[in-house]
Amino acid sequence: MSDFLQSCFLEANRSVTPGGRPNGCPVLLGCPYDGTASFRPGARFAPAAIRHASQGLESYSPNLDLDLEDISFQDLGDLELPFADQAKAFSIISSHVDTILNQNNISVVLGGEHTITIPIIQALLKHFPSVIASEAKQSSALKIIQLDAHLDLRDDYLGDKTCHATVMRRISELVGWDNILQLGVRSGTRQEWQLATNHHTIGKLDDIAHWVGADLSCTPSVYLTVDLDVFDPGVMGGVGTPEPGGWFYSDFLQFMKQLHSIHLVGLDVVELSPHYDPSGASSILAAKVVRELILLL
Amino acid sequence: MSDFLQSCFLEANRSVTPGGRPNGCPVLLGCPYDGTASFRPGARFAPAAIRHASQGLESYSPNLDLDLEDISFQDLGDLELPFADQAKAFSIISSHVDTILNQNNISVVLGGEHTITIPIIQALLKHFPSVIASEAKQSSALKIIQLDAHLDLRDDYLGDKTCHATVMRRISELVGWDNILQLGVRSGTRQEWQLATNHHTIGKLDDIAHWVGADLSCTPSVYLTVDLDVFDPGVMGGVGTPEPGGWFYSDFLQFMKQLHSIHLVGLDVVELSPHYDPSGASSILAAKVVRELILLL
Amino acid sequence: MSDFLQSCFLEANRSVTPGGRPNGCPVLLGCPYDGTASFRPGARFAPAAIRHASQGLESYSPNLDLDLEDISFQDLGDLELPFADQAKAFSIISSHVDTILNQNNISVVLGGEHTITIPIIQALLKHFPSVIASEAKQSSALKIIQLDAHLDLRDDYLGDKTCHATVMRRISELVGWDNILQLGVRSGTRQEWQLATNHHTIGKLDDIAHWVGADLSCTPSVYLTVDLDVFDPGVMGGVGTPEPGGWFYSDFLQFMKQLHSIHLVGLDVVELSPHYDPSGASSILAAKVVRELILLL
Amino acid sequence: MSDFLQSCFLEANRSVTPGGRPNGCPVLLGCPYDGTASFRPGARFAPAAIRHASQGLESYSPNLDLDLEDISFQDLGDLELPFADQAKAFSIISSHVDTILNQNNISVVLGGEHTITIPIIQALLKHFPSVIASEAKQSSALKIIQLDAHLDLRDDYLGDKTCHATVMRRISELVGWDNILQLGVRSGTRQEWQLATNHHTIGKLDDIAHWVGADLSCTPSVYLTVDLDVFDPGVMGGVGTPEPGGWFYSDFLQFMKQLHSIHLVGLDVVELSPHYDPSGASSILAAKVVRELILLL
Amino acid sequence: MSDFLQSCFLEANRSVTPGGRPNGCPVLLGCPYDGTASFRPGARFAPAAIRHASQGLESYSPNLDLDLEDISFQDLGDLELPFADQAKAFSIISSHVDTILNQNNISVVLGGEHTITIPIIQALLKHFPSVIASEAKQSSALKIIQLDAHLDLRDDYLGDKTCHATVMRRISELVGWDNILQLGVRSGTRQEWQLATNHHTIGKLDDIAHWVGADLSCTPSVYLTVDLDVFDPGVMGGVGTPEPGGWFYSDFLQFMKQLHSIHLVGLDVVELSPHYDPSGASSILAAKVVRELILLL
Amino acid sequence: MSDFLQSCFLEANRSVTPGGRPNGCPVLLGCPYDGTASFRPGARFAPAAIRHASQGLESYSPNLDLDLEDISFQDLGDLELPFADQAKAFSIISSHVDTILNQNNISVVLGGEHTITIPIIQALLKHFPSVIASEAKQSSALKIIQLDAHLDLRDDYLGDKTCHATVMRRISELVGWDNILQLGVRSGTRQEWQLATNHHTIGKLDDIAHWVGADLSCTPSVYLTVDLDVFDPGVMGGVGTPEPGGWFYSDFLQFMKQLHSIHLVGLDVVELSPHYDPSGASSILAAKVVRELILLL
Repeated sequence: MSDFLQSCFLEANRSVTPGGRPNGCPVLLGCPYDGTASFRPGARFAPAAIRHASQGLESYSPNLDLDLEDISFQDLGDLELPFADQAKAFSIISSHVDTILNQNNISVVLGGEHTITIPIIQALLKHFPSVIASEAKQSSALKIIQLDAHLDLRDDYLGDKTCHATVMRRISELVGWDNILQLGVRSGTRQEWQLATNHHTIGKLDDIAHWVGADLSCTPSVYLTVDLDVFDPGVMGGVGTPEPGGWFYSDFLQFMKQLHSIHLVGLDVVELSPHYDPSGASSILAAKVVRELILLL
Repeated sequence: MSDFLQSCFLEANRSVTPGGRPNGCPVLLGCPYDGTASFRPGARFAPAAIRHASQGLESYSPNLDLDLEDISFQDLGDLELPFADQAKAFSIISSHVDTILNQNNISVVLGGEHTITIPIIQALLKHFPSVIASEAKQSSALKIIQLDAHLDLRDDYLGDKTCHATVMRRISELVGWDNILQLGVRSGTRQEWQLATNHHTIGKLDDIAHWVGADLSCTPSVYLTVDLDVFDPGVMGGVGTPEPGGWFYSDFLQFMKQLHSIHLVGLDVVELSPHYDPSGASSILAAKVVRELILLL
Repeated sequence: MSDFLQSCFLEANRSVTPGGRPNGCPVLLGCPYDGTASFRPGARFAPAAIRHASQGLESYSPNLDLDLEDISFQDLGDLELPFADQAKAFSIISSHVDTILNQNNISVVLGGEHTITIPIIQALLKHFPSVIASEAKQSSALKIIQLDAHLDLRDDYLGDKTCHATVMRRISELVGWDNILQLGVRSGTRQEWQLATNHHTIGKLDDIAHWVGADLSCTPSVYLTVDLDVFDPGVMGGVGTPEPGGWFYSDFLQFMKQLHSIHLVGLDVVELSPHYDPSGASSILAAKVVRELILLL
Repeated sequence: MSDFLQSCFLEANRSVTPGGRPNGCPVLLGCPYDGTASFRPGARFAPAAIRHASQGLESYSPNLDLDLEDISFQDLGDLELPFADQAKAFSIISSHVDTILNQNNISVVLGGEHTITIPIIQALLKHFPSVIASEAKQSSALKIIQLDAHLDLRDDYLGDKTCHATVMRRISELVGWDNILQLGVRSGTRQEWQLATNHHTIGKLDDIAHWVGADLSCTPSVYLTVDLDVFDPGVMGGVGTPEPGGWFYSDFLQFMKQLHSIHLVGLDVVELSPHYDPSGASSILAAKVVRELILLL
Repeated sequence: MSDFLQSCFLEANRSVTPGGRPNGCPVLLGCPYDGTASFRPGARFAPAAIRHASQGLESYSPNLDLDLEDISFQDLGDLELPFADQAKAFSIISSHVDTILNQNNISVVLGGEHTITIPIIQALLKHFPSVIASEAKQSSALKIIQLDAHLDLRDDYLGDKTCHATVMRRISELVGWDNILQLGVRSGTRQEWQLATNHHTIGKLDDIAHWVGADLSCTPSVYLTVDLDVFDPGVMGGVGTPEPGGWFYSDFLQFMKQLHSIHLVGLDVVELSPHYDPSGASSILAAKVVRELILLL
Repeated sequence: MSDFLQSCFLEANRSVTPGGRPNGCPVLLGCPYDGTASFRPGARFAPAAIRHASQGLESYSPNLDLDLEDISFQDLGDLELPFADQAKAFSIISSHVDTILNQNNISVVLGGEHTITIPIIQALLKHFPSVIASEAKQSSALKIIQLDAHLDLRDDYLGDKTCHATVMRRISELVGWDNILQLGVRSGTRQEWQLATNHHTIGKLDDIAHWVGADLSCTPSVYLTVDLDVFDPGVMGGVGTPEPGGWFYSDFLQFMKQLHSIHLVGLDVVELSPHYDPSGASSILAAKVVRELILLL
């Protein structure tokens, strides 16, 4: 019945397929897991908030001159994840991402907290196996660009090895330091900053193309993980750990320009904690970021 | 009795007339109508919120070196408008603006949603009738500058011809495409962007003076409609449809400089939905915008 | 995939049919219309809030010893309604309720503001036509029980004939004064109280069975309209016009007992304005009321 | 112009005088002073919140069968009070109450914090001087009924003699212990409870008429001070110091019945701190209490 | 320095010992764990909120005529607990409770979510070992009174055996069905209600003394676990899963009377989620409950 | 016990002394006084909010490459101040700052409203007495840098000489106009702007070093007072009087660079009113400002 609400361009169970769904279309998957949040929980509410906020946005992006109505994508809805059993939660996430990849589609995961990037990368690495990049060291074919206020490079946090404060340390063990680029970072312990400095992971916006193409012996596949606290708390107050001094939307637009020449094989948008921003502006910004990134894919 | 609260520079029933009220003084009129809001209602609370917020501001503008206490203006208070009978609401608005103009004053309308600009322009056109601007086409003597995140150029929205998403389309039919300048826009459907591109309505801040004076055969009268969502949601979260990537106050100051050489014959400030910003910062920004614009008149 | 979230017992597009769907099952329909709200809008957000809140409740009612999982019902989701065109909105609502009735099901409408009861009753009257109840006067076979803080018996409000303040006056014209029972009322103008007193519409909890069976020449069909402001603002702060001195949940349980012997042919639950209650307790109470009433059907 | 908003029955500068204003009409005066609030400030916003909330109520009380439109009353608006200079603030309050009394009207003061009752009583005592009630002791002709969760009988609080925690101690010094009746109290220090017990100030609802008429040698004039925290925080969360276990509206109705036979010569309603209750239900309950009390006068 | 803030009667690191600390004094321990919250997290903020709220209450209880300043108690502050490693979190909680018991003191634990009762009971059972209550069955000497809206008797929830929905099932395995009394319950699955009915765990307020003394062959030691959602959401909106139809403060007072004759050996107060109640009334009610219970010990 | 929460780097009663506490270490003192707030009170809650917010920040500053764990500082907690007795409140503040200075430490005061800077400066002037700066005029050795949106140069406000609107006028009388530098100012009356212009107090970011060293005959000691409303309301909505058009964090970083060459002898951070920003972002920004300034000392 055409009278029913359809104005939300992101919605669970939606399958948009103009002209038959080809391979390689973005598939949204909500992972409302926030079991390790140490400061302010609530990322579990993010996927629903992003879908709701998308009602206030157009499906057309004047910046990219592209419209969600002209492309194929699907929204699988939200996984039901046990908060107190991380291993099981990770296993569920990993297997669903694996299924998406097996269907030759691109996973676009809505967190949840940043920790969920670990099982996603684990699933991706099955499809983008390690290669010999040089004589001296082995490297994966998967490169990771991280937008984040925090380095997330602790080895453990209160004894916990896999939590939002250690996520990039674990991922460095999966893909190697050379395959990590950190943008927008402005917080960490002294030890984390020394690690990042030693391994040259902290980049600048105009480094991206150079960094990605540094190893020309293979076509680099890039995974993008967006911790929304990369934005300034003034425009993104609804996150678990706001950190002053971040990006505004103009910085994100500049980043988007850098992405044009890059081959993205998956992405996640994490750490929105919508209840902390009663204006809803954080959720709307998150939804706009998701729209732009889907269109770019 | 001098002990009663008078610190609010904008207040209903206030009539400030140092040295006798001359012609051409600004007259504030609150139009708390939000009957067509599709996403988040609440613009009806805006006039009261702007008046309350003005308590926290000075009446003096260091930017303009002008003080509200040195000029004449009046605040008529808020109209009582039937939400479900748009035609009647528009008629009430239009007739009150007409009365203000008949007294040779300048209407400064506090919305309410953007739709109210339609009856205001209808009233103004009686006083600024159409002229022959060139051989090829007729044009009104009234030019419209629109500050807005959205183009508002749909022909209809859910079958509705006069709502906040179609307001500038209706106004284009009243004054002609050549008399519309859109600033700060960053959202619309593909069709709206094509219309705006075809008719060259989207301008830049340093275009204003040139655009206004383009037709030198008559002295252009300019009406300014400020949809507050032109501002970034970071500084103006309390609007019906926040759109990331907007103006900060420094952009508005730059716009104000452009206005110095322009003859404003009326203005409105619309779409504040104050309940969405519990910090009150949105209402205070709206009040400061109103203060600066009144002083400029 | 069984991992996806299914814990919400009320959800759009859900069709629960253990053992094949028989006739007479409840069908939920969201009507997010709040175009005439005079004081505080936001009832448009109610259906989504009630569905979300139902996640925090069990599907089993210890009070009734019934479980939603054991009965058949369907949730059609929300209609998309034009706020500024009441006639069209009413027509859409009326035709959908008509469709539900044609399928021999029972409409359970989630408002939206109280005004939506008018087109619902109009649709119902096609299926429950008027009969000759006595020699002296004609009467419909449809009786209306209204739970409400307000009489809603104005003839017009600011000249508007069909708005939330006039809804029961309009319905009295459709079904006759004798077929209206008002419970929980505690606010109105002097004129409204005189009308209600003259027509004996204000009842008490233990009057219900007597009132319904008063006319024994036909089997009375009863429609129930629940304006949630019947509850005390202490437990239901999230409504458009809270009125102190209302029901607590124990009063509603007492009312439920009275309903056991009554033949309900439809119901609506209206006027939740969820944003006014950040605790979510209002939405949860609304969801529990809906659960109990569906189970009772 | 009849189109302007007039639906708020309490509003600054309103003067309602059907048939000429007689003596003895209620005069509202807002005293937004909260300079000594120790826990949660914000009572300064109460008068404006009560006026705004009154928009959502009818002017007619079905409980009393009286309508504000049928009686005379005036709303003087809010005094501008210096928060850091209590002596000056008290002097301003006292002199305005004095003026109201000189005009043979009845002051209905909207606080502000409870401390403001002190200057009000000081002004009243000029008009209701002390009399010889019995041989043994002198007593004022003014009796005070206090609705409150707290005894407010400390001698000082942090060395401060005149603050919200000492207000009734100061008043006991003005009118004598015998002239104070405390209802709804449920909090205090051990010392305060001993004082109240020794002086028999704590009463019950059905004691009122007896207590007022105890001294039959004069016609007792009664002043009523309503600290809104007498209500349960469930229905009145927006106060400075909520105390669980308080009144619901049914208790207030029972109190109202007791007042019928009593000669009220003034009243105040204090300690609403509206920002703490985003649902607005506290302000609406305060407005309804004010409406009922004005009608009773 | 006496100028520093000391008005909070519950505060971390406080040790109040008038006249030397005897054995058996209450020791507060904050356990801010909410790792399994399925609906609305935030119980981790409860201990801090309860301490803050206690600033607005007196240390004296007129109900009990007892003052916290006259008794000995200590507040150990909050444990730092890893949210994603439940086993470790439980072990930390259990060992701290054990230490308190070894010092012959009484643990008063502030949750956190209800799950924390499991390690507390495990620690207590070392000090209150099982005894032979009758020939037919073994029973612990520890009886549990649970105040709760929910039965919490599921065997697992999403496969999770130890979470807030299964806590009383696990405890039934530790102490036996006969030693559990559930008060205030009004929600559960059909299976949970059948279990509770079969084992006669659901009691009424006036059953308590009878139930506790049922087995007279030993002096019964009673542990009290207070899930704050036993209260009605109207007075306790700030909990993880509000359930309409609960207790008001008068019910709690009635419960307190029943406790006088009972030997309490420990208690916890859990599930406050303070951010959901911006009025703070929920935290204040929680603090008052804690004050009354400490005084009763 | 190492299990207890210690993640908050700012906390009352904390004394961090790696390697023995030398002279000259920063000592935090909370002064929760907001007795003169004219628009929106709540600065009394600021010290607690800043300490809580510091839990979400690291102790290490990548900007300065310094870590709070490597320096000595102490947090004395909050003073208990009588709101209605300003003289007494000022005396308590002044004497505690004096004690800190006598111990050769540096006072870092967390307000509270801006007025508290007056007693702080009074205490400092005992330790930094006036000197003969030139033949023509006497001057203190203490220079004041003020970050603020408002000039605060009124002579009185509603007759009040010492309130948040007059604080810098009073301080000008203590240290002389030449020793005041105002940065970030954008609001004031016409009279205040004339005063500031005449006395050349309004500076720019790159003027600081020049201004401080202008008088080379003595080593200038600089006191810094940070009214947090110097920041834009978009990133600092939680202040008493937000003023659009302010600093973002990048401006503060630029200011920090200017401070490197300057000898700070004390500082305060005032006017945070945390309840107005439910996202907590304002408190986090305040905590980060405090962290950076402590590290700089």
